[in-house]
Amino acid sequence: MQYPVPTFSDVCAAHERIKKYINRTPVITSNYLDSMFDAKLFFKCENFQKVGAFKFRGAMNTVLSLSQEEINKGLATHSSGNHAQALALAAKLMNTKSYIVMPDNSPQVKKNAVKEYGAEITYCINTEEERVGNLNKIVEKTGATFVHPYDDVRIIAGQGTAAKELIEEVESLDIVICPVGGGGLLSGTSISTKAISKAKVIAAEPKMADDAFRSLRDGKVYPSIKPQTICDGLLTSLSELTFSIVQKNVDEIITVEENTIKNAMRIIWERMKIIVEPSAAVTLAVIIENPELFRDKRVGIILSGGNVELNKLPF
Amino acid sequence: MQYPVPTFSDVCAAHERIKKYINRTPVITSNYLDSMFDAKLFFKCENFQKVGAFKFRGAMNTVLSLSQEEINKGLATHSSGNHAQALALAAKLMNTKSYIVMPDNSPQVKKNAVKEYGAEITYCINTEEERVGNLNKIVEKTGATFVHPYDDVRIIAGQGTAAKELIEEVESLDIVICPVGGGGLLSGTSISTKAISKAKVIAAEPKMADDAFRSLRDGKVYPSIKPQTICDGLLTSLSELTFSIVQKNVDEIITVEENTIKNAMRIIWERMKIIVEPSAAVTLAVIIENPELFRDKRVGIILSGGNVELNKLPF
Repeated sequence: MQYPVPTFSDVCAAHERIKKYINRTPVITSNYLDSMFDAKLFFKCENFQKVGAFKFRGAMNTVLSLSQEEINKGLATHSSGNHAQALALAAKLMNTKSYIVMPDNSPQVKKNAVKEYGAEITYCINTEEERVGNLNKIVEKTGATFVHPYDDVRIIAGQGTAAKELIEEVESLDIVICPVGGGGLLSGTSISTKAISKAKVIAAEPKMADDAFRSLRDGKVYPSIKPQTICDGLLTSLSELTFSIVQKNVDEIITVEENTIKNAMRIIWERMKIIVEPSAAVTLAVIIENPELFRDKRVGIILSGGNVELNKLPF
Repeated sequence: MQYPVPTFSDVCAAHERIKKYINRTPVITSNYLDSMFDAKLFFKCENFQKVGAFKFRGAMNTVLSLSQEEINKGLATHSSGNHAQALALAAKLMNTKSYIVMPDNSPQVKKNAVKEYGAEITYCINTEEERVGNLNKIVEKTGATFVHPYDDVRIIAGQGTAAKELIEEVESLDIVICPVGGGGLLSGTSISTKAISKAKVIAAEPKMADDAFRSLRDGKVYPSIKPQTICDGLLTSLSELTFSIVQKNVDEIITVEENTIKNAMRIIWERMKIIVEPSAAVTLAVIIENPELFRDKRVGIILSGGNVELNKLPF
């Protein structure tokens, strides 16, 4: 099957479309971390994005790309995490319904957030089969539009706006680091980075969920099978679409240990006084494990989100 | 005894003096919190200040006000908390020594930070007598200058620069809320607020450490005796100097429950994705317990610091 591949023009169009809905998130720096690594680090804080994660960019772009008729029928997805919140808020802003299939073991705080945005939630047991089965039933019954969390040109174009903002704000980056799960954020980031900068794109992945690393190495998409990582936003595998973009644009995928991710998260919390989730801290973990790659470099880092269960911290 | 009382000119002079050393901390807002309280809240983020707290402003102003001879002899204080770090960093930046007396039960993370800034630490048991006794010995032996954490015109003038920045950035505030412990930050905040705005000044204090509230009510300084509050930055009592300023400038001191403080801290962490310490969250706790006072108002909030032990969170 031939997929339409998003371009930087799509990212620019997405940016115009979503500009008045998203937060223009800040880029922050830390003297302490800079001197720790002899590098200049620029953190793009998507933890300060609406719903606490970059996901709102792609969801909002997708919804704004739909026809009024499609919007009126509502939006549907299955997700236990940030995409669920993002789609629920996007639907709310467009005055339409959202139908979210959530695994019943999703964190209470995420269930609450999705509910607060007015979504209609269907709980199911957490298997792919159950999630997709329930979603299909809802779509069939309501005619709602299914919005995939990453395997979608409009989603990818939306996610690419974060790196676009970063690169437009910070001159002469040598490297941009971004987490990889399903590859939506990474695809968008790599499209923007290659289009308007000379920076390398490095993807950060937990060693315990290294399907993207292996996929890139072997030239074929591996599924992500029951990965045991603290990074709850990086559990999914690439799609054919995101894989093709990653193959073309991403210079390297670097995997890191769980302990380094926890350590990176703690350093960001303690030193920068901001809350990021493990899936965001995986980027700094790459620098901690490979300081020589970043010495004397100007490094852009996409801190993808800040939704954590405060009752279940790893420290 | 007659104390010289700092004026807004002192705050302006302090600001010029410390400008290139401090972080110009951001003022951030939250749609979520605004709609929660039907108010417009502006958070001045001193958790992003150097050493993670406003204390660096006053310490740096004091050190820059000393003669070169005094600086050369070094700086001394006793503190288990943010003032210790602030003075140690100020000394380091001036290429001089700092001598800090710390209670041996101070949090390890604070001991480490003070050590990292190159201070010479003397540990003692945590009684006022031991702390002062050790400090006096050091001052006698080294000739170092004692820098009090709040009972000092230069410290107060320095702390007042945070509110000055806030008011210069945000127009037409109706109320400024600030925590009160020893009263250094509150004094400086109230001097700036009364000088360049029409805003009321409300002080926020834990009910479990309500000595400032009682002092203002009864017109005399009460000591703070073994207060049992989670707000480790608000354990001290007013001095005659800070009391006189508070009496003149502060419209109201409002006390709040411990549980509300924990709840406020959690809301700030979860919704704003920033790390603040309990002593900073006491401000939002006042709004939570008294929403009617703030409805439809533009409220400036001094988030005083973000130094917390991640191993000992109250949630």
